[in-house]
Amino acid sequence: MDEFARHASGFQLDDTRHQKWCVAGRPDGNVRGSDFELLEAPIAELRDGEVLLQTLYLSLAPVMRGYMSGESYAGEAPLEIGDVIHGRGVAQVVKSRHADWKEGQVVQGQLGWQTYKISSMMPQEKFRRMPPNGLPASHGLGALGMTGLSAWAGYFNVGTPRKDDIVLVSGAVGGVGSLVIQLAANVSACETIGIAGRAEKCALAARLGCSTTIDYKSEDIQSALASALADGLDLYFDNVGGPMLDAVLDHLRHQARIVLCGSISEYTLDEPYRLPAYTRLRRTDAQMRGFFVYNHLEDWDRAMDEMAGWIRDGQLKPVEQITDGFQHMPAALAGLYSGQNMGKQLCRVRGEPDTWI
Amino acid sequence: MDEFARHASGFQLDDTRHQKWCVAGRPDGNVRGSDFELLEAPIAELRDGEVLLQTLYLSLAPVMRGYMSGESYAGEAPLEIGDVIHGRGVAQVVKSRHADWKEGQVVQGQLGWQTYKISSMMPQEKFRRMPPNGLPASHGLGALGMTGLSAWAGYFNVGTPRKDDIVLVSGAVGGVGSLVIQLAANVSACETIGIAGRAEKCALAARLGCSTTIDYKSEDIQSALASALADGLDLYFDNVGGPMLDAVLDHLRHQARIVLCGSISEYTLDEPYRLPAYTRLRRTDAQMRGFFVYNHLEDWDRAMDEMAGWIRDGQLKPVEQITDGFQHMPAALAGLYSGQNMGKQLCRVRGEPDTWI
Repeated sequence: MDEFARHASGFQLDDTRHQKWCVAGRPDGNVRGSDFELLEAPIAELRDGEVLLQTLYLSLAPVMRGYMSGESYAGEAPLEIGDVIHGRGVAQVVKSRHADWKEGQVVQGQLGWQTYKISSMMPQEKFRRMPPNGLPASHGLGALGMTGLSAWAGYFNVGTPRKDDIVLVSGAVGGVGSLVIQLAANVSACETIGIAGRAEKCALAARLGCSTTIDYKSEDIQSALASALADGLDLYFDNVGGPMLDAVLDHLRHQARIVLCGSISEYTLDEPYRLPAYTRLRRTDAQMRGFFVYNHLEDWDRAMDEMAGWIRDGQLKPVEQITDGFQHMPAALAGLYSGQNMGKQLCRVRGEPDTWI
Repeated sequence: MDEFARHASGFQLDDTRHQKWCVAGRPDGNVRGSDFELLEAPIAELRDGEVLLQTLYLSLAPVMRGYMSGESYAGEAPLEIGDVIHGRGVAQVVKSRHADWKEGQVVQGQLGWQTYKISSMMPQEKFRRMPPNGLPASHGLGALGMTGLSAWAGYFNVGTPRKDDIVLVSGAVGGVGSLVIQLAANVSACETIGIAGRAEKCALAARLGCSTTIDYKSEDIQSALASALADGLDLYFDNVGGPMLDAVLDHLRHQARIVLCGSISEYTLDEPYRLPAYTRLRRTDAQMRGFFVYNHLEDWDRAMDEMAGWIRDGQLKPVEQITDGFQHMPAALAGLYSGQNMGKQLCRVRGEPDTWI
């Protein structure tokens, strides 16, 4: 039995108890079982202005290692040892003493790794109602949540795609990447090249619309890029950072744009990756564009409407990999850094709601 | 007598001979006297379609070390040992067998380190006529030449300054930088902060319009930037690259733009500088924008008209440091990397023309 299984054994989801995963240690490299502690407590009584949220799904995202390491994100206070781990979730309001919220409504937002949350629904918790629209509630952590907004805003607002652009996407079947390749290939009808690790991931990228795929684990990346990008590229949507970004800098067309969305290859490094020869941006007036999804919240409604429409008409197929059971959150997070996952990673705590208003 | 003086001693400018500086060795670190060779030859006879250009001024620019090292720029073939060193110059047509060119006209373009050039005025030599406009011909290598276009296009086209931007310029009294700080402070009326090395350079930057200056040689750069940029910056016009760029990445406001114009601090490194934590662009949706002046030639006429206008009305004061004598080109180039120079560096070979049509 591995360290994570030992941790999870004997756990039972209890609708009468508040169960939560807390920071027990600071990760050194990848997360280990001893970095987590599972705590339980009675569910507190609601006060005026509060709601009780019951967790349906929880998100798993590479950034969570940073939270556990005590890094601060989006202006939030860094996590202390003993704090509930940060993370987004989809939850249902099961009791409300808040004028604006009703039992049966579903929200997604900053829930934390816990089975319940008592919230006064302050803006900093970033809860947004998910109106029932016939699509699964789980999409609230992927295509119809912050992951979807990251793809939509990173691609359209920051990447500013133009007709006939050649688009390259790394992490092509990751949570954001699997949406971006479909926006590029299906919505924008651009030639889209996907980079992923292993044949099954490349096969998925091709099914989702990529005309060319590169398996960075089995192909020589320099020659694969030279072949796939014989005419250069206009837009690189970068989900991985590191040496891949380096290699891509040799293939920039005039006014090419690099969208810096993620850098998962760098998250387990103690020292930041040092990017050589960023000056290669010069020759073609190319741009490297940083991007933080919280700077794009004003586009939430438009983005969600468009994404839902594209899902309904089949241009966008959300890819979700679901771990079953709250007790397996730590192992699932550790798995994110091993390159095994496809699409948005999430954990089914209770799953789809019975009723939803 | 140093290696450069020994080289130059006994030289006499000879209007009957074609004198030229050629590559004798590949620079290893800064250029040395032994990297140059001075050759002389008779002036060849003109053929149909050719003009004889007589050199008035030659440019000195950091990029010339790259030429001598065999690097290729702007699609030109790299220099071989024995080739005339690349460089821009201002010259007068003294004989013409070309239908489009007349004796007495003045041009600036790709002249090379030589006292004469026989040219068929092909587009790749990039000669552009300088109509007499009451301003000195030397400006053709600075404010009214490619240096001026670099400042104009880098600042306006790439930097896209907005009202009330806080603008930071490194290399603030260099060839390009001394123009950019004046465009920002005087033409755009932006708060402009200049970085330069040594008190006399900072004093010049202040006279040219900077409200704050930072002497990177005597001040602690981290605390100087933190103090000067308490409110962050919107536009960084980067002429130096390297660790300064690193430090600036901590001070980016929302949608800040970094214009990568030059990286003189990196030119004498054998390995490219590795930029740590370029991912700091993300938090504020900031952009790093490469820029190559030859991508902006279509704006030549507009840029030159505007620059000449601002010089005439006193908003723009060209700063030129002139080395006298063709024989001193190598020593003057070596001096560029030592941080002693202010404004556009050029060499007076024959100087202003007597007449000019």
